[in-house]
Amino acid sequence: MRLPHHVKMVEVGPRDGLQNEPQTVPTAVKIDLIDRLTAAGLPVVEVGSFVSPKWVPQMADTADVLAGISPGEGVRYPVLTPNMVGFEAAMKVGVGEIAIFGAASETFSQKNINCSIEQSFERFAPICADANEQGIRVRGYVSCVLGCPYEGDVAPAAVADVARRLLEMGCYEVSLGDTIGVGTPRKAVELIDVISESMPVERIAVHFHDTYGQALANIYAAMSKGIAVIDSSVAGLGGCPYAKGASGNVASEDVLYMLDGMGVETGVDLDALCAAGRFISEHLGRPPSSRVNLALSGTA
Amino acid sequence: MRLPHHVKMVEVGPRDGLQNEPQTVPTAVKIDLIDRLTAAGLPVVEVGSFVSPKWVPQMADTADVLAGISPGEGVRYPVLTPNMVGFEAAMKVGVGEIAIFGAASETFSQKNINCSIEQSFERFAPICADANEQGIRVRGYVSCVLGCPYEGDVAPAAVADVARRLLEMGCYEVSLGDTIGVGTPRKAVELIDVISESMPVERIAVHFHDTYGQALANIYAAMSKGIAVIDSSVAGLGGCPYAKGASGNVASEDVLYMLDGMGVETGVDLDALCAAGRFISEHLGRPPSSRVNLALSGTA
Repeated sequence: MRLPHHVKMVEVGPRDGLQNEPQTVPTAVKIDLIDRLTAAGLPVVEVGSFVSPKWVPQMADTADVLAGISPGEGVRYPVLTPNMVGFEAAMKVGVGEIAIFGAASETFSQKNINCSIEQSFERFAPICADANEQGIRVRGYVSCVLGCPYEGDVAPAAVADVARRLLEMGCYEVSLGDTIGVGTPRKAVELIDVISESMPVERIAVHFHDTYGQALANIYAAMSKGIAVIDSSVAGLGGCPYAKGASGNVASEDVLYMLDGMGVETGVDLDALCAAGRFISEHLGRPPSSRVNLALSGTA
Repeated sequence: MRLPHHVKMVEVGPRDGLQNEPQTVPTAVKIDLIDRLTAAGLPVVEVGSFVSPKWVPQMADTADVLAGISPGEGVRYPVLTPNMVGFEAAMKVGVGEIAIFGAASETFSQKNINCSIEQSFERFAPICADANEQGIRVRGYVSCVLGCPYEGDVAPAAVADVARRLLEMGCYEVSLGDTIGVGTPRKAVELIDVISESMPVERIAVHFHDTYGQALANIYAAMSKGIAVIDSSVAGLGGCPYAKGASGNVASEDVLYMLDGMGVETGVDLDALCAAGRFISEHLGRPPSSRVNLALSGTA
């Protein structure tokens, strides 16, 4: 088994995390959080979405957040642009990287983004073409890669097909999302084996939710197949284990603790990351949804 | 990589779990819990300790618990017997399996069981000899296998030495405990590689605590080296993630979800196990410390 020497951690807390928190966080707090994440050494911080504030009010201030942060040297700050309107709004404020969001399950695509998988590609094509022409990097997401809340099992071949098409469309990287957290390590390994047949493993990122506590095991399994890009959310933003049935992203602190313990380089400082996690958790009025952050800040 | 087809789950909640809970659980509740765990299909349930009630008041009723449970066919109910007094008390009530508890760290041994590692073997020797003569199975524990709260790193060779001596003394199985939960998968793999040189992997069990959320990743890593006996604690008894710095056993529900998802046979029913976890959690007045149990009992 080979594990990567270096892993790129992609912090999704300010977007995927805060977007799923019930309360809307003030712009100044988001800016402070993102600056703390930058200072902790994260190389990529997803800052927000250009999406209708009618649907996602938590992300309505993304342009102000972008204008307010202090960008780190070489750090990238992608934003989600689900359609051409969003893309054009992002271009107006000088965004350097965008993300688009597809699904491997037909029903989930319909329910989540109101169109078929095929229609989503028709929507993405002009965005990717414009972005590539302007030298804007595009990151692709695929949701429901290890299970769909409506369809149940999802075929690895279906995921591989969507991932390959995103890559062909001009995405530099495709992030595989276990949106409902039902994946287990053997399935994660099988999925990556299938996808690796049609695209280089260096282009694949993993994005696991910790709903059933499986995320770190899945990440380790994915790393054993060469995966070296990992999405995570500081303080486990986007889900709360203290509430029944809540589902959240894997906590960045827990991922980093595992990587540090295995001697895998990330350039991220655990103490600074934990401090950022406690900062936003205090604002939300609850403990961080990260075992590592709880343990390290404990008095035991 | 080979994963085992079948895993033996060793349930330690009623002993290792409840022993570390601040409140003492009534005997009738313990009996009810153990009967539910038996009904869920667990092949081994550790029921208690024969140890001075002055030190561990939570376990003072172990003889009554043993007398009250309805044993399942072929199910084993070991008890911890740290010394000859405890062993003789266990023999009086007809216990069929005992467990002894050593450490891989000299300082931890001194602080936890008030003797050196060498002295602990002198204490265990007559217990093992008597037990083997009477046909009583003996399970050995080694604590601090991936780190010590006093000494920090623990050498795999030191763990292997203690494990081998326990086996030679007559233990049928040695359970490797990451007592403080600091282990990560690469270290778990390295440890098992070293220990496998001096004893058959079939004789090794793993006992991970989830203090830093690493337990499932470590278990998967251990399984990839052939480990097929896993200790866990229903509802994560023995630690509470809702309190700062609390440390607990990995939740049996989370382990079983991973094993089920990988098609590994256990004979344990997830719904029944979750119900047992909710039963004892309700008694303790808090949610189960198991992501799976929270997610499956949720309304989301």
